[in-house]
Amino acid sequence: MARRRRRDRGRVSYLDRIAECNAHEPGNFVPFVVAGEHLGLVRHGFARRLSDFPASFAVTDRGVTMAPGLDTFDARTSAAAEALRRLADAGDITGWRGEPYPVGGRFAGPHSMAMERCAVPLFGVRAYGVHINGFVRDPDGAIRMWIARRAAGKETYPGMLDNMIAGGQPIGIGLMDNVIKEAAEEASVPAALARRAVPVGAVSYRHDTEDGFKPDAMFAYDLELPRDFEPVNSDGEIAEFHLWPIERVMETVAETTEFKFNCNLIIIDFLVRHGLIGPERADYLDIVGGLRR
Amino acid sequence: MARRRRRDRGRVSYLDRIAECNAHEPGNFVPFVVAGEHLGLVRHGFARRLSDFPASFAVTDRGVTMAPGLDTFDARTSAAAEALRRLADAGDITGWRGEPYPVGGRFAGPHSMAMERCAVPLFGVRAYGVHINGFVRDPDGAIRMWIARRAAGKETYPGMLDNMIAGGQPIGIGLMDNVIKEAAEEASVPAALARRAVPVGAVSYRHDTEDGFKPDAMFAYDLELPRDFEPVNSDGEIAEFHLWPIERVMETVAETTEFKFNCNLIIIDFLVRHGLIGPERADYLDIVGGLRR
Repeated sequence: MARRRRRDRGRVSYLDRIAECNAHEPGNFVPFVVAGEHLGLVRHGFARRLSDFPASFAVTDRGVTMAPGLDTFDARTSAAAEALRRLADAGDITGWRGEPYPVGGRFAGPHSMAMERCAVPLFGVRAYGVHINGFVRDPDGAIRMWIARRAAGKETYPGMLDNMIAGGQPIGIGLMDNVIKEAAEEASVPAALARRAVPVGAVSYRHDTEDGFKPDAMFAYDLELPRDFEPVNSDGEIAEFHLWPIERVMETVAETTEFKFNCNLIIIDFLVRHGLIGPERADYLDIVGGLRR
Repeated sequence: MARRRRRDRGRVSYLDRIAECNAHEPGNFVPFVVAGEHLGLVRHGFARRLSDFPASFAVTDRGVTMAPGLDTFDARTSAAAEALRRLADAGDITGWRGEPYPVGGRFAGPHSMAMERCAVPLFGVRAYGVHINGFVRDPDGAIRMWIARRAAGKETYPGMLDNMIAGGQPIGIGLMDNVIKEAAEEASVPAALARRAVPVGAVSYRHDTEDGFKPDAMFAYDLELPRDFEPVNSDGEIAEFHLWPIERVMETVAETTEFKFNCNLIIIDFLVRHGLIGPERADYLDIVGGLRR
């Protein structure tokens, strides 16, 4: 961490964080199409691997589709799960979560199929999440924000900084129910307090990962906490929490890559909405426009 | 007004307001290019009219540029002003304001030239404005919003509903100074109170008008007012103010076209940021994404 921080010192730019979230090379992918709808992007190497499962996937030079005859939500979901389970057994897919994510259509549905969470980026399909800005307001109006550090043993982005509460959005659970669940698991927030989280918008990005592509949308919430509330992790996913003056959060976002990439967008959106990033900045409209791709 | 309201009854959609703000037919325009930079769009008819002023503008089938030799900010500004003044004298341009707007480059500059405000949409150049959501919070947390009705004699959008305070952003005045000036003129808000306006983001759109094109960006501010504050217009541009429960504002935005088109976006953005339009809506991500084009 110290090394990463030093390396980035001197670069002070929210736009750098936005650009990192939107690093994408279309040439590295072929489309993933279901029932004529372009749902995602698959890296060339993973597309070749999928051609080993012709009962589930049809792979050509032009892209990946579901195998012929897989015409319903349930048929597609089962066939994909069968192949993905075998890929996981072979060690080609890691980090199995057992959480089905919706695939295709709008967030509210109807969806084309469901797919195990850890495979979603491999198919470059849009995933959704909830991110909660937990903060306190001091008597003089100053804002301090709760920041989480991800556990060293997490499969993805271990040890990086994170929003106080954040989680992926599986199929079959409402957004506020997910907020309440994640708030309890990650930070021991009582349900009555978590329910005060105010939905304040969404951010989105198009981000290449090593194995895939994440064209994701995150629902943002603000949760103003009592000053004496102290988050305590209960699921082992968070190593520690810090209550930082907002200036330190701003500096860390602008000058370092210590936060997991998409958490930067959630914080930048918070800073814009609370007037902490102001329109006098020459890059203001680029920042505001950059939060939703 | 009553007729317009009745006609739209039954259509309940924030997306309709967003779509109206972004009604644009590219085929009706040719580009306005300055020093190689595409700055705007000019309707075919107005481009033909500009060809009557060859000392100021070079007009071809491919677009409108400044006449050869007009290579500096001052030269372009003077030459355009000369032609525009004559067009105004001939009655081809109405609503002269005497307010120079910046043209070209980013909002913060450097700019390619300045241009009289009323001509900016004729050249389809981006204009900027400040829009202030004036609201009060009742003891139970309920929000009421101050709404203005534009004077019947206003050159543009007479009699329509508007945000409590809003104004174009001329060249040479800071954003907060403009907020304070407009707050004083439009609603007699003391400077110390106006200064509490919090910048909360920006909305943008690409909107055809009868004579031109507005690819504009509006800086949004929230101004929470004391419950006993009463706005009083002092420049004749506002006919009346109303303090409406937020539910009535929401209904008016969703079901009618009573608000001046771009004020709808400012209010919708307010509703999103305050959790009054929530992510359970099937159209939530379309709404959030639609506010900035």
